[in-house]
Amino acid sequence: MTLAVVTLAAGKGSRMKSDLPKVLHPLAGRSMLAHVLASARRLEQAEQHVVIGHGAEKVQQEFADQKVTWAVQAEQKGTGHAVAQAMPAIANDAVVLVLYGDVPLIRTETLQQLVKIASTGDTLALLTVHLDNPSGYGRIVRDEVSNILAIVEQKDASAEQLRINEVNTGILAVSAAHLHEWLPKLSSNNAQGEYYLTDVIAMAVANGVGVRAIHPLNEFEVQGVNDRLQLAQLERVYQRELADNLLRDGVSLADPSRIDVRGTLTVGSDVSIDVGCIFEGDVTIEDGVTIGPYCIVRNSHLGAGSRIESYSLIDEARLELDCNVGPYARLRPGAELAEGARVGNFCEIKKSHIGKGSKVNHLTYIGDATLGADVNVGAGTITCNYDGVNKFQTNIGDGAFIGSNSSLVAPVTVGAGATVAAGSVLTKDVADSELAVARSKQRNISGWQRPTKNK
Amino acid sequence: MTLAVVTLAAGKGSRMKSDLPKVLHPLAGRSMLAHVLASARRLEQAEQHVVIGHGAEKVQQEFADQKVTWAVQAEQKGTGHAVAQAMPAIANDAVVLVLYGDVPLIRTETLQQLVKIASTGDTLALLTVHLDNPSGYGRIVRDEVSNILAIVEQKDASAEQLRINEVNTGILAVSAAHLHEWLPKLSSNNAQGEYYLTDVIAMAVANGVGVRAIHPLNEFEVQGVNDRLQLAQLERVYQRELADNLLRDGVSLADPSRIDVRGTLTVGSDVSIDVGCIFEGDVTIEDGVTIGPYCIVRNSHLGAGSRIESYSLIDEARLELDCNVGPYARLRPGAELAEGARVGNFCEIKKSHIGKGSKVNHLTYIGDATLGADVNVGAGTITCNYDGVNKFQTNIGDGAFIGSNSSLVAPVTVGAGATVAAGSVLTKDVADSELAVARSKQRNISGWQRPTKNK
Amino acid sequence: MTLAVVTLAAGKGSRMKSDLPKVLHPLAGRSMLAHVLASARRLEQAEQHVVIGHGAEKVQQEFADQKVTWAVQAEQKGTGHAVAQAMPAIANDAVVLVLYGDVPLIRTETLQQLVKIASTGDTLALLTVHLDNPSGYGRIVRDEVSNILAIVEQKDASAEQLRINEVNTGILAVSAAHLHEWLPKLSSNNAQGEYYLTDVIAMAVANGVGVRAIHPLNEFEVQGVNDRLQLAQLERVYQRELADNLLRDGVSLADPSRIDVRGTLTVGSDVSIDVGCIFEGDVTIEDGVTIGPYCIVRNSHLGAGSRIESYSLIDEARLELDCNVGPYARLRPGAELAEGARVGNFCEIKKSHIGKGSKVNHLTYIGDATLGADVNVGAGTITCNYDGVNKFQTNIGDGAFIGSNSSLVAPVTVGAGATVAAGSVLTKDVADSELAVARSKQRNISGWQRPTKNK
Repeated sequence: MTLAVVTLAAGKGSRMKSDLPKVLHPLAGRSMLAHVLASARRLEQAEQHVVIGHGAEKVQQEFADQKVTWAVQAEQKGTGHAVAQAMPAIANDAVVLVLYGDVPLIRTETLQQLVKIASTGDTLALLTVHLDNPSGYGRIVRDEVSNILAIVEQKDASAEQLRINEVNTGILAVSAAHLHEWLPKLSSNNAQGEYYLTDVIAMAVANGVGVRAIHPLNEFEVQGVNDRLQLAQLERVYQRELADNLLRDGVSLADPSRIDVRGTLTVGSDVSIDVGCIFEGDVTIEDGVTIGPYCIVRNSHLGAGSRIESYSLIDEARLELDCNVGPYARLRPGAELAEGARVGNFCEIKKSHIGKGSKVNHLTYIGDATLGADVNVGAGTITCNYDGVNKFQTNIGDGAFIGSNSSLVAPVTVGAGATVAAGSVLTKDVADSELAVARSKQRNISGWQRPTKNK
Repeated sequence: MTLAVVTLAAGKGSRMKSDLPKVLHPLAGRSMLAHVLASARRLEQAEQHVVIGHGAEKVQQEFADQKVTWAVQAEQKGTGHAVAQAMPAIANDAVVLVLYGDVPLIRTETLQQLVKIASTGDTLALLTVHLDNPSGYGRIVRDEVSNILAIVEQKDASAEQLRINEVNTGILAVSAAHLHEWLPKLSSNNAQGEYYLTDVIAMAVANGVGVRAIHPLNEFEVQGVNDRLQLAQLERVYQRELADNLLRDGVSLADPSRIDVRGTLTVGSDVSIDVGCIFEGDVTIEDGVTIGPYCIVRNSHLGAGSRIESYSLIDEARLELDCNVGPYARLRPGAELAEGARVGNFCEIKKSHIGKGSKVNHLTYIGDATLGADVNVGAGTITCNYDGVNKFQTNIGDGAFIGSNSSLVAPVTVGAGATVAAGSVLTKDVADSELAVARSKQRNISGWQRPTKNK
Repeated sequence: MTLAVVTLAAGKGSRMKSDLPKVLHPLAGRSMLAHVLASARRLEQAEQHVVIGHGAEKVQQEFADQKVTWAVQAEQKGTGHAVAQAMPAIANDAVVLVLYGDVPLIRTETLQQLVKIASTGDTLALLTVHLDNPSGYGRIVRDEVSNILAIVEQKDASAEQLRINEVNTGILAVSAAHLHEWLPKLSSNNAQGEYYLTDVIAMAVANGVGVRAIHPLNEFEVQGVNDRLQLAQLERVYQRELADNLLRDGVSLADPSRIDVRGTLTVGSDVSIDVGCIFEGDVTIEDGVTIGPYCIVRNSHLGAGSRIESYSLIDEARLELDCNVGPYARLRPGAELAEGARVGNFCEIKKSHIGKGSKVNHLTYIGDATLGADVNVGAGTITCNYDGVNKFQTNIGDGAFIGSNSSLVAPVTVGAGATVAAGSVLTKDVADSELAVARSKQRNISGWQRPTKNK
């Protein structure tokens, strides 16, 4: 069986008040449409069809590297019309699953159930949900033995029907053969002048095709986003869900309401995360890592036993075992810390290797450098890696000691066991074990008068 | 018609446990009284009368620049007595609107309705609210056709009256003529020995003056503050309201529970604000600006397309188009960034102009300086702008390159296209295109012995 | 009367998914067991008995400095069995109070009530609680005059009993004589094959010993922790409770949901704390201190009138009156700021005294130094206190001026009123009032060609 997933993503989303097409607005760091497609891709043998309209090019561009069959809905003429745009590319023997690009948190497991029901061929599978407040939604009308008879919209519902709290989510699966037959028969003879996909339910009932409803595990799976308020609410629901899962997996979180995960966080055992941390992209945290408050970690690997102190920002970096980073440390792309390395406050490391046990503790910039093991870099050290045009490398051997406030003018090599005197500006290589001094003689002048206040 | 707004602000607020008069405690960065006065000032032809007592001088001082008629209530003898202190300054043909300095979030629109009713002259307009838990409040007793008959205090209420959930807020508007007549008739013959403004309702009813109630749009409008717990709760309600409004206006907020706005935030389209940001004073954010987590922006202008990265603090600064600031950047008062300028981590900019496309990226202090376009300031550069007594200017021309770890001893000028070698201490001007070097010769010493551990 | 508190702390806590024994998991910076023991120690004449099992050594080690009688429960055979392990060390005339190492927030006041009841000798005092959802808990069955008859477990309860919402917390006090008699009679003839302490209730009733229940003031006192989700929830309840108490005591909190106190916070009057601050260990904050957003203060003293600006980290430091710290300032252990001292952005102070009115404002590292009064330390100054092997002292006299970007190579002394020229590397002492210059002559080179782009 082929499964054709048709995701509707043509809407403008005026209430978002944005130049960005609605389905491209991010939730947890990925566009809403990306969430939907990711859930859909986990289904077996699924072809992805996406119906686009407003901002069609931007949407296509965003998913340029994914296999998607695009269908364009030039005019916004309703959900039934939108699905119809995708149908020409869908074989008669496929099952069609209809999703929405602005209902981002639908789970694959829920979709699997729908597909399984619809794959029998003679049943339409509908996702419905019971709401405390069903107002505004289409109610699911059932007969006395609970068979679904129809979906009645709010405005057409009787007083009795308004009390029904099972509502339509719009998500459904049914054989393509049926849709090929039904969609052309939809009428736009209604207040909005639109073709509603919902009307196929009545057609199914009329045609003696069974309609079976299932429910999502969580209500958030079927929550749609029409404005940024709803998007922010869904973001919070999603983040809280992620946080609770981390807790269940054995991660310590100081406050599950103050952690943001925007991507994939892989966490070992006995990891502790303090308040206000943010994780973006692919982050791996090994056993026993402690992360202090207000840290940001992006596309990085934190080796077992490492300790990240408050206000640190780690981006595309790799830490081996037992590293110690922060507070106020910034690791930029290409920062590699070997076992036991230490980067302290107000330090910036870019595209550099910090060797085993080496220390860069205070107010230092290390860029385009390779440090051996057990190097000590004094406070205020700067690798002068850029001459305004080109970038150059700095190499520092094992056990070297770089005195505070030194400037290492790259390209330059400091040998193993070498010492650079504090305050030196290094422009030439230093051999192993040598002491390099590049500073001026001190003159003390007595009788000097302090300047006086200008008028 | 003249409108005399009488705001009661004489209370001590013992439960605040503070030396600061209660009405001066801040909510969203402004004193509670300032909120009330700001709402009242938006009413047409409103004269502001404020009744002060405890901490009277501090209160007057705080509003020294505003047109307010002060009335002093020397002794705390009740709300009726308080209003009476303001009456001598109020003409008979005015409408009086009574507000409270510790009920800070009353909206102008609500007040307009009260004033409109009272301005007919023969009706007292009363603000009442329905509470889920009315316990402790004065209940609004109405007759069978819903006319207000009286306000019954909790302790005097019958069992039936206690079930009434419409309560008095104390906020009312009525003609001054009536108040001039009624207030002298108030009695302090009650448990507290105080003159209650509430008793004028009974007088109105007795005098055949109509009493009409209206309700606030939101309950928070009438919430009073007696202690810091209530103040903190109201702060949160207010902040959440602001956040939801930003979302509705099309701003993306990563978490509407983690943003604080203390002042006026003017925001363009497609602005995105990450968690934990704080805005104080007058802040303007133009289209397409992205603000990372934990940034603080105060009295500043952020030009379109600018990107502010995490942990940045921007205070009285102005950014033109497409600037890039942070992470960990501090812009102090007088920092001006021209189009495309960049200020990076651990940099501090004070009273300086950073020209178009110029970069100050790492661990640098720029104070009292003017940088032209396309200047590159290396890591660890310091403008030495202060000799302990006076401050001096640094000027850097277009396209200059300032090598890392340089010290620019002001007053000093670096010409256009000039280069300063890394680690230099500049004390003299550098002409256009010149290279300036001010550093020592490097000596490498072999056979040097590292110091040994002291006992 | 002797009081023997028996705290059960033998469980593994598999659902914590941790190598750390469950009772050692921290809540508000202290282990759960430490919370229980702290509450129990406040009881008069209390001997502490703790029953350990899983991770027994780690638990003992953690409390090595406390007077505790340890009992080991080698096998997990139920709560009754656990208490029995402690009984041999408890005299017959003692009262036994049973607590749980994973029920961390029990209050001393609640325990006092239980002990008082049990100390009459003939009454078992039981802590029970009414829950909205009692499902899963043992129900308290009472007779028509409200005497407790039995505790019926969920699975054994009748439909009527299931409606009872008063449940057993497991916390009880009773004379040791009774327990010595009853515990050996417990049976493990139940589904789990365990000896349940709960069964002593039935024995008490059967023996004509009165059973009296009291209730905790707050439900959180009896909430147990089985996984990290519950621990995180309890942490939040506890933090909110602390925050509300601070507000009631007259502290201003910008957001009571965004403050974390992990230890003992002693606060004067009119202290204001902005969002996101964290306090650890023993922290004292004197009158009128203002703390900006996202500050972390650990084991420190903040003198009256001091102002801590955003993103500051203060650890084992002492500030006198009217100090000004931050933003982005890091005070490390041993930092002492005298009255009116100022430490600004991107500065790190370690084991140093900053004298009265002295200023260390920008991008500076001060370690192992003593600064007199009114010293001005310029931007980018580094005390070079470490030669790779030993640390040395820097002394700076009153009124000295240290020019920006200077390096002070310790050991070194700068006399009172002395001046160090900007960019100097100081290796020798400077006498009072002297000017020290240690920098190179500037050479300006014209006709210099910028490097060209490498291929």
